[in-house]
Amino acid sequence: MTSFENVSVIKQANIYFDGKVTSRTVLFHDGSRKTLGIMLPGEYEFGTAAAEVMEMLAGEMDVLLPGQDAWRTYKRGETFDVPANSKFKLKVMTVVDYCCSYKE
Amino acid sequence: MTSFENVSVIKQANIYFDGKVTSRTVLFHDGSRKTLGIMLPGEYEFGTAAAEVMEMLAGEMDVLLPGQDAWRTYKRGETFDVPANSKFKLKVMTVVDYCCSYKE
Repeated sequence: MTSFENVSVIKQANIYFDGKVTSRTVLFHDGSRKTLGIMLPGEYEFGTAAAEVMEMLAGEMDVLLPGQDAWRTYKRGETFDVPANSKFKLKVMTVVDYCCSYKE
Repeated sequence: MTSFENVSVIKQANIYFDGKVTSRTVLFHDGSRKTLGIMLPGEYEFGTAAAEVMEMLAGEMDVLLPGQDAWRTYKRGETFDVPANSKFKLKVMTVVDYCCSYKE
């Protein structure tokens, strides 16, 4: 199993949409930050501050990225980039396990 | 915010009950192990292998511990012990954020 070594984990969860989207924050020695999260089936809109790379660890969802007019399906093993200070929409079909890396 | 320092985190989530219960595994240098998890409202039964200490980080649930005939409510800041090789039942009323420490 892949793991992140010698990191810090913030104990308290980040909880959104009545718990249908939750994550834990992982802090790295180089100052970088990731969240490991779960999204239950549903439709969501998120806003970014920093740019992000979303990596799909499990599940399937449709994504509408900013500036695009077509939804695209992402599955386990795939990644997509989200620009800073933008909004994107998700339709989660099956429980999504993800890793979000912040570029800042 | 409280955090666990110099730990390893397994990237992949543990997913139970169609994603209504999920957790991440945190490994410590002394060989000990905790999971940080989320439980959405619902009723669940769990079995233990190792004995556990459950710490409530957020939310509220009723718990029926093994060998007891009365449910008891646990809230943020409270903890309870679960013996090894036992079963316990939960009724989650509001989204629960928890930290489970394994004694092994």
